[in-house]
Amino acid sequence: MKRVAISIGDINGIGIEIALKAHNIIKERVKPLYMIDREMLESASKLLKVDIPNDFETIALNLNSFAINPGEISKDSGYYSFASFKKAVDLAKDGAVDAIATLPIHKKAWELAGVGYKGHTDALRDFFKQDAIMMLGCNKLFVALYTEHIPLKDVPKKIQKEPLKRFLLNFAKSINSDKIAVLGLNPHAGDGGVLGDEESIIIEAIEEANQEIDIFDGVFVPDIAFTPKMRQKYRYFVAMYHDQGLAPLKALYFDESINVSLNLPILRTSVDHGTAFDIAYRGGSVSLKSYINAIEYINNEK
Amino acid sequence: MKRVAISIGDINGIGIEIALKAHNIIKERVKPLYMIDREMLESASKLLKVDIPNDFETIALNLNSFAINPGEISKDSGYYSFASFKKAVDLAKDGAVDAIATLPIHKKAWELAGVGYKGHTDALRDFFKQDAIMMLGCNKLFVALYTEHIPLKDVPKKIQKEPLKRFLLNFAKSINSDKIAVLGLNPHAGDGGVLGDEESIIIEAIEEANQEIDIFDGVFVPDIAFTPKMRQKYRYFVAMYHDQGLAPLKALYFDESINVSLNLPILRTSVDHGTAFDIAYRGGSVSLKSYINAIEYINNEK
Repeated sequence: MKRVAISIGDINGIGIEIALKAHNIIKERVKPLYMIDREMLESASKLLKVDIPNDFETIALNLNSFAINPGEISKDSGYYSFASFKKAVDLAKDGAVDAIATLPIHKKAWELAGVGYKGHTDALRDFFKQDAIMMLGCNKLFVALYTEHIPLKDVPKKIQKEPLKRFLLNFAKSINSDKIAVLGLNPHAGDGGVLGDEESIIIEAIEEANQEIDIFDGVFVPDIAFTPKMRQKYRYFVAMYHDQGLAPLKALYFDESINVSLNLPILRTSVDHGTAFDIAYRGGSVSLKSYINAIEYINNEK
Repeated sequence: MKRVAISIGDINGIGIEIALKAHNIIKERVKPLYMIDREMLESASKLLKVDIPNDFETIALNLNSFAINPGEISKDSGYYSFASFKKAVDLAKDGAVDAIATLPIHKKAWELAGVGYKGHTDALRDFFKQDAIMMLGCNKLFVALYTEHIPLKDVPKKIQKEPLKRFLLNFAKSINSDKIAVLGLNPHAGDGGVLGDEESIIIEAIEEANQEIDIFDGVFVPDIAFTPKMRQKYRYFVAMYHDQGLAPLKALYFDESINVSLNLPILRTSVDHGTAFDIAYRGGSVSLKSYINAIEYINNEK
């Protein structure tokens, strides 16, 4: 059974509740290790009125305890969530675990705590000095983003043959699939150049990538790339920009989706939702789907 | 019962088959008038082995007949489909019908025939010298496109307060709804300006439009605008560009969707698919859903 380091996310959010409630489900699939000090865990458990399972194995961060303030952006919880994440990464680097799964952090809390990263993927890129690939989705549909968190107006100039070709090949090496659908940039994939010409660059990148690993199809017309017929044929897609891939994905599979960091020395999966401060510690029901799918992805990896 | 002029689209495509097969269904909802000469109709009927219903009322175009060539792009069929459309528009202009529904034409065939328009909407804009609004969708979800068939790189500079405000108000006047969701342009709707700042313009346009017709909400983060929760709350959305709205729409409701031209003196609805030359006159099954929904939209209009 694979060993998975789980970072507990922002403790003022829903991460720890998910970890506690899903433990009995995920322990059937992997051996989880939780990056949290016992004292903080006990505070959360009391506040949530959710018992700590007997076999809930923790790895100490050895940080000072602080009061949990449900739904609040705080420096303490920001720092703690970063330390929890860092510990998970270190265990993976050392080979003590096979992969890491991360629960949601709050970007503003990281900022308050002086953490110099915008998020997990950003941090991982820096830790490993490698171009992590961000892939989101669920078993039915995965989308890798060629460009991510940049203004839309900056996207077209990023469509360049060499970086795109490199991205495609790195992506192909990171997944197990014999075909990948690559989207165009413009409406109707440019309609023969009338509605934009970046598709000619994308086509070249596809052709050159196919000379090394022959699994890329496209370019596909973006607005009909995610219709039922296409989804029957393809499970992996490359989107040229954030919303091109994520708007259809989230329209279809909102609460099932996960976030996977590929092309790194370690495998990291994550829930595809935030800290949900509005429902944290309120006693309502939280969805475990995304988290369980994130663990499932690790379990299914060769 | 409303009278509807139906243009039969490219006769080498699936339009006429849809019209014949759906007649008994749509005649329960509207009074259809088909823009086709009797001789051409009879040729199509024979070729399709689908009988012409007794009450299939046609309006003659008085054009020379020509041989139907299933699946072929031709000058004759291009010209004929334009004439059929033009006749429908003229009947609507004259008040002889309440609305028009169009079956798919082939753009290349129009080009061969010397028709100087890229498509129906383009032609309607010119006929009426008015800014037609293109809305696509089905009863569960309608998306109006602020920009349509332009390269992606030209979209950001089109985000301007006055034209957007005008668009919003024209759209509000064209539909019956007490709320409309307006999307941002950038990932995470710009995340407070870090990922692009066009959202500040969109917000201003929304605020000013709300001073006249107070039904606009937003800006919404594009990639989570079409999740189930949002779709429960909103039926009408304004997308800033083609694929932002249409990729999620088609992922969700591909064969149900229709195309509606708003903000014109006449109402025009259309199927949201092409001529499907690959299956025309092949005896397979064609989906009537989009066409029936296009008729249904007219029926439901006040």
